[in-house]
Amino acid sequence: MRTIDWAGDGIDLIDQTLLPGRLDVRHVTDVDTLIADIRRLAVRGAPALGVAGALGVALACRTEPSPDAVRAAAARLRSARPTAVNLAWGVDRALGRLGDGPEAVLAEALAIRDADIAACRAMGERGADLVADLAGRVPVSVMTICNTGGLAAVERGTALGVVQTLHERGHLTEAFPLETRPLLQGARLTCWELDAMGAPHRLLVDSAGPFLLQRGLADAVLAGADRIAANGDTANKVGTFSLALAARRAGVPFLIVAPESTVDQATPDGASIEIEDRGPAEVVGVLGHATAPEGTGALNPAFDVTPHDLITAIVTEARVWRPDEPAPGVR
Amino acid sequence: MRTIDWAGDGIDLIDQTLLPGRLDVRHVTDVDTLIADIRRLAVRGAPALGVAGALGVALACRTEPSPDAVRAAAARLRSARPTAVNLAWGVDRALGRLGDGPEAVLAEALAIRDADIAACRAMGERGADLVADLAGRVPVSVMTICNTGGLAAVERGTALGVVQTLHERGHLTEAFPLETRPLLQGARLTCWELDAMGAPHRLLVDSAGPFLLQRGLADAVLAGADRIAANGDTANKVGTFSLALAARRAGVPFLIVAPESTVDQATPDGASIEIEDRGPAEVVGVLGHATAPEGTGALNPAFDVTPHDLITAIVTEARVWRPDEPAPGVR
Repeated sequence: MRTIDWAGDGIDLIDQTLLPGRLDVRHVTDVDTLIADIRRLAVRGAPALGVAGALGVALACRTEPSPDAVRAAAARLRSARPTAVNLAWGVDRALGRLGDGPEAVLAEALAIRDADIAACRAMGERGADLVADLAGRVPVSVMTICNTGGLAAVERGTALGVVQTLHERGHLTEAFPLETRPLLQGARLTCWELDAMGAPHRLLVDSAGPFLLQRGLADAVLAGADRIAANGDTANKVGTFSLALAARRAGVPFLIVAPESTVDQATPDGASIEIEDRGPAEVVGVLGHATAPEGTGALNPAFDVTPHDLITAIVTEARVWRPDEPAPGVR
Repeated sequence: MRTIDWAGDGIDLIDQTLLPGRLDVRHVTDVDTLIADIRRLAVRGAPALGVAGALGVALACRTEPSPDAVRAAAARLRSARPTAVNLAWGVDRALGRLGDGPEAVLAEALAIRDADIAACRAMGERGADLVADLAGRVPVSVMTICNTGGLAAVERGTALGVVQTLHERGHLTEAFPLETRPLLQGARLTCWELDAMGAPHRLLVDSAGPFLLQRGLADAVLAGADRIAANGDTANKVGTFSLALAARRAGVPFLIVAPESTVDQATPDGASIEIEDRGPAEVVGVLGHATAPEGTGALNPAFDVTPHDLITAIVTEARVWRPDEPAPGVR
């Protein structure tokens, strides 16, 4: 099953807000519904958002009356969420074929989908090799945050794709997903995927991760990325930074796993990355149940930035990038 | 209103599991009910547990038929929770007067209660002075975790007592409490107390704290303690360690505020502190609502250990202890 795909006259996508309780595939046939689905996180995860952006432009080509109207719809779609670079990247790639007609736009979107499937498989293999190499032995235990599995991509995931590959190779002792407040993607989605793949796992609250790294629970930390700046600073789900800090102190490898499309050469460093604040409602309650007194305010940064010096390596479908090492030729 | 106190023939305590929805005072007249209340966190917080332990022994003197039965009840009470040293300390102090009769035991327990009230006031003053001194200016913004307010003590709190003193002096810009998963003491209890004192505040999910320290949100981090080892390593609510790591990286002072009774000279360092694991149920759900798929396992360390080298200072009612500085005379 694919998390998102083209189907007939529109887009099929798994509504991730209903998991783990219910597996429901929505059929979306207009761009504004897609935008609303992106905003409410029915579809989420940087690679999946890239595919959603491209397929959304293909959809607009069918529903909008003119190329200008397609461009206007694409602009709305592009800004549905600000932090993940992949959404804008997917929109722009598909929009680049607008002059060649709707079928060319759809073909480009499907090519992005197919490239994601291949890229995730390649990241899984390369990442599993690297984890084994850095740990100096297998099997290994790993810690991860948010959901970076098939639900964040098309078929297989990024960081959780590495966990899946480790498990398929018989190299995984146990995975430790963080629940990932406020929206609990780790508890809801990653545990569901780990169940589905039959991989041993135990859930942690987010703040237990750093301490349990210090106590030697995991051999590596694997995280995804929403935007990687040119210098390697990485925006990812809030909580990633504190795992990186703790991994460094504990001497545990900290790996970012993400497709090349997440690397944004136009963003020089982490300070230039816009961090989406999703408003107080997600923080002052859980699953719609109030936790704080009525009227409590909140800050809700959805992402944080991990400075490149805390990142052991960034694994993409094309390379292992060690951002804290000087580039070849640089002394 | 006091969080816990002696009243007539037993103990009055605010049932903290019902906050912020309902303020309910329970009257407890037997030790086993008190033990159950401690286990389910109806009463919690290291200083309050010290008072609960002492008052519990006074209660046992009235209900148990013999000194041996009092000692047996005290032993059960002493081990109701393993990490906070104050509970055992309060039990032992009251039990030390057993030979002098029930009234002497009660007088000792009430003296512990009164000492807590005075100690919290002294910590508030000393801590507020130190924060202003370290920040080099007022007003200041501060970050805090869990609940270390009046609800964790008798009248005023430890770390949140410092926040209260800053606020009363007009030296507080804003407080940023972390919600404190799994049991949400920050969201439920600290926001309720900050509301009651009229102090400006906004809530954060736990993992946002480290990132927002990096972005300069707060001038200091204030945390309580459940046990301080002889070398200054400090066990406190899980999540404290990652705040300390982030504070160090951001150059923000990280302060522990706790009474001298929390310092355990019998524990040489953090590695010797037993960390209570409260089982998976609190992690795989929130407020009784499931978040993870049925059957998901979890690790649930209630506390973590912050190494002394990450602690700027420990503020007690008697001193400002900088554990990372050599003791006088040591070179």
